[in-house]
Amino acid sequence: PFALTQLELDKLSKSIREDLLGTDHPVLSKAASYFFKATSDGGKKVRPMMVLLLSRALNWQRSDLPQAQRRLAEISEMIHTASLFHDDVIDGAETRRGAPSVHMVFGNKMAILAGDYLLARASICLARLRNVEVVETMSTIIEHLVRGEVMQLRGSTSSERSGERLVYYLRKNFYKTGSLMANSCKSAALLGEYPNELVDASYRFGKHVGMAFQLVDDVLDFEGSLSSLGKPALADLTAGLATAPVLFAAEECCDLEPLIDRKFRNTGDIERAVEYVFQSSGIERTKELARVHAESAMDAILELDSSLHRDSLVHLANKVVARTK
Amino acid sequence: PFALTQLELDKLSKSIREDLLGTDHPVLSKAASYFFKATSDGGKKVRPMMVLLLSRALNWQRSDLPQAQRRLAEISEMIHTASLFHDDVIDGAETRRGAPSVHMVFGNKMAILAGDYLLARASICLARLRNVEVVETMSTIIEHLVRGEVMQLRGSTSSERSGERLVYYLRKNFYKTGSLMANSCKSAALLGEYPNELVDASYRFGKHVGMAFQLVDDVLDFEGSLSSLGKPALADLTAGLATAPVLFAAEECCDLEPLIDRKFRNTGDIERAVEYVFQSSGIERTKELARVHAESAMDAILELDSSLHRDSLVHLANKVVARTK
Repeated sequence: PFALTQLELDKLSKSIREDLLGTDHPVLSKAASYFFKATSDGGKKVRPMMVLLLSRALNWQRSDLPQAQRRLAEISEMIHTASLFHDDVIDGAETRRGAPSVHMVFGNKMAILAGDYLLARASICLARLRNVEVVETMSTIIEHLVRGEVMQLRGSTSSERSGERLVYYLRKNFYKTGSLMANSCKSAALLGEYPNELVDASYRFGKHVGMAFQLVDDVLDFEGSLSSLGKPALADLTAGLATAPVLFAAEECCDLEPLIDRKFRNTGDIERAVEYVFQSSGIERTKELARVHAESAMDAILELDSSLHRDSLVHLANKVVARTK
Repeated sequence: PFALTQLELDKLSKSIREDLLGTDHPVLSKAASYFFKATSDGGKKVRPMMVLLLSRALNWQRSDLPQAQRRLAEISEMIHTASLFHDDVIDGAETRRGAPSVHMVFGNKMAILAGDYLLARASICLARLRNVEVVETMSTIIEHLVRGEVMQLRGSTSSERSGERLVYYLRKNFYKTGSLMANSCKSAALLGEYPNELVDASYRFGKHVGMAFQLVDDVLDFEGSLSSLGKPALADLTAGLATAPVLFAAEECCDLEPLIDRKFRNTGDIERAVEYVFQSSGIERTKELARVHAESAMDAILELDSSLHRDSLVHLANKVVARTK
């Protein structure tokens, strides 16, 4: 069913690329459009795909897709990309999507500026949608992305018990992943001036897909390998981050707590943590939680009228949980 | 006449501070509100002062100032501050306003995030003004600030003659300083729904004040000292930047060209450049150009109806040129 939007996604990258050209500075354009090159794999583009499919599912009675919702799909991907640029500088991540991250190619300075430039262009495109509620909704995303990154940098305080850590971690996931999907979907519905119930259902669909998506990402960091995910496996542990599989494992095996507290800094910590995770039901419980979120997403989307594109969104929620990369 | 707005400026810092609190992360709040502390000197606050005075001059028939224009003044200062945070990381500047710059206190990561957070909050506040033309106008500023910083990083290419360098430098000044003032003033007029001529006059006033302001800043970098300007003198030359006094001097003394080309990198370059500048009419011609811009600003503002606050704006344009810090 995604073939339906594949052509539109290709056009999307092209359209973003064109928007980003025409600066006085070729390096800025190049850096900002780094992930929108025709040759780049450009990531999964889950966010714009969701916006496009949802817009079509909401508009099922008409065959064409309004230009505004197409632009919204682009904006969601521009904001996402800007946050990747800044996060990769902040986290010192060397690869992204199987290629060097933007700051490795263009330097930290240009990565910061390219991120700012993407945010500026996104704001201008947003303003041109001429819907202040959408502007406010989409601006909230940027604030949430910052909050999420700060929460990740800081980590939960060591005095907290594992249950509280999990709450903290899930809130961080909402800010870093759920909010962008939730508020982009909400904005798609707002642009079409649909009734509140559909706006709300769209928001919930995006939020739960986002939460499921991040949980599966965290599992794949344990199960995946460099070739399939485009970033090195165990990147989270290496960065000192305890994600859901570790936090669930810690509930069964209290030996993990001190490792989490010292951010897996000692020699052998990472290997021991991996061992604990695979001995416990950490991976399985994370997958289970992802499935619960995917089902909530499906419940939400089934509130829309039945259509081919609604089916695609159900399929998308399923695929997010089943994906292996 | 500025006493008129001093109370409002104090309230402004307080209001921004309150808006920035209430994050989950105290360090983020602290970093973002670094320049809005009651104890900080907080800079000259020229931008919000212009917006406040201009709004009052436009609204001279009524005694109260609409809340929207007050918020706009805050937004202009938030955007300005965000760009200072990122620029100081990018340029590696160690001091700002006589105090350590934000990244020296909170680290690069937090400075990037605090800048993003300020931009996000500014976007949300903007959306709440519920005027899409204002959102678009103010978003353009952010794009211009990025372009200006990129132009400054890159520098004009060495093959260019000094006249072309000057054009490049002035365009960079518009992006880095003029645009924020021009578009903030324009937005103040847009918010009041004044006729196009007044919107245009407001824009020109802001633009010319901004250009004059930056030229005087560049002169003060030669004439000023650490104590009065809050940043070390000759900061521009030290950073390899040729500003107006140097570019004018180069028109009279061609020995300066190679120094500009190598960004004053060799031992003794800075001292020689200073000598050339003071031997030439570089400083005087820069001041003269600043006066021309200040006069254009006054011409623009005199298109408004006569009022006490219009007089204050004339005074402000004068003071920008006459300031010594």
